[in-house]
Amino acid sequence: MTTSLSPTTRTQVVRNRERGAADRAALRDVLASGMIAHLGVLFDDAPRVLPTAYAYDPDGPDADGTLYIHGSVASRSLVDAPDQTVCATITVVDGLVLARSGFHHSMNYRSAVILGQPRTVDEPAERDHALDLIVDRLVPGRTKALRSPTRKELAATTVLAMPLHEASVKSRTGGADDEQFDIDAGGVWAGVVPVLTTYGTPERNADCAAPSPF
Amino acid sequence: MTTSLSPTTRTQVVRNRERGAADRAALRDVLASGMIAHLGVLFDDAPRVLPTAYAYDPDGPDADGTLYIHGSVASRSLVDAPDQTVCATITVVDGLVLARSGFHHSMNYRSAVILGQPRTVDEPAERDHALDLIVDRLVPGRTKALRSPTRKELAATTVLAMPLHEASVKSRTGGADDEQFDIDAGGVWAGVVPVLTTYGTPERNADCAAPSPF
Repeated sequence: MTTSLSPTTRTQVVRNRERGAADRAALRDVLASGMIAHLGVLFDDAPRVLPTAYAYDPDGPDADGTLYIHGSVASRSLVDAPDQTVCATITVVDGLVLARSGFHHSMNYRSAVILGQPRTVDEPAERDHALDLIVDRLVPGRTKALRSPTRKELAATTVLAMPLHEASVKSRTGGADDEQFDIDAGGVWAGVVPVLTTYGTPERNADCAAPSPF
Repeated sequence: MTTSLSPTTRTQVVRNRERGAADRAALRDVLASGMIAHLGVLFDDAPRVLPTAYAYDPDGPDADGTLYIHGSVASRSLVDAPDQTVCATITVVDGLVLARSGFHHSMNYRSAVILGQPRTVDEPAERDHALDLIVDRLVPGRTKALRSPTRKELAATTVLAMPLHEASVKSRTGGADDEQFDIDAGGVWAGVVPVLTTYGTPERNADCAAPSPF
């Protein structure tokens, strides 16, 4: 059920049925750390993978919590999704693993693969909640500064919910895992180059005179 | 054929058939900027999306160049892939777009969606080339410091190639695109928070005494 970022990635694969508190925490960590999800849907019998914003509510109404995604009502991927099993994958790359051989090169990463049949969120309070979560996840508290959506905006937006029930988490951490004969040979640097995602200096809109919240 | 990171993302969708030099350059830009690909394959009639390292060769033997991915010969996703159409999606997030309304919040990003039927790379010279490209793409010149793969390592590795022929590129750039009445109301900051991917200080393996190349 899994692939890996290298032939030798050490993996931690968990199935929801046997998932304990630690595994649920690992899933929540990936959900909290990711920027976007990659959503896999079927188009004409072939998989199509599309990047999308997301949010999650561990106390949402679905089994083991809810993953929310949204998009235009004109988006075929979202309109078709509720009739099929889809896959939402969230990956965080933490580092490049430089080994003494090409074979043992790898990446440190955390990823979550969530499978399920989405439901369309129609109930107004849950829709509002989901849309606020999507905005606030990357910019906490942002929606407090904003007006409510108009009826027209809501009509143009599809919100989908997926249970967090059927999910797996994989990760790799730590340094290069080399063959002993390569270690003994010496000469080649081995280790991890951390990969960091950071925010740059905010760039104010040309049409904006409001004070910066940053 | 596309989804978007927000209901209002401005998109640039290109089809290979009408792709000119600018569009090919946009595809190459995404391929050069991405860290990993998300590979969509069919598992039991449902899409499964898995993160994977990749490399590309604009002069590769496939139509419009070649995308290379690799993994363990034990990976079901790679073993099954050559019999089906798969989707490799590479996304670079460039910024968070903060608008005066939740509806117009978005992300600046670049993404490439590549569809095709992979072939297994069996020819030794192409396999070596592909594996070197995968290591060297994120750490240029790295393979020059490394020994050649052993026969055992090569036997444990599957390399797949996909044409870059059927691909689409989407991107969003620029500031928030707000309603005029929200701009007129003032008070809410709008603009872009850049998202940067950088490398941290390399962490040497405990078993390594070789000089740092960084």
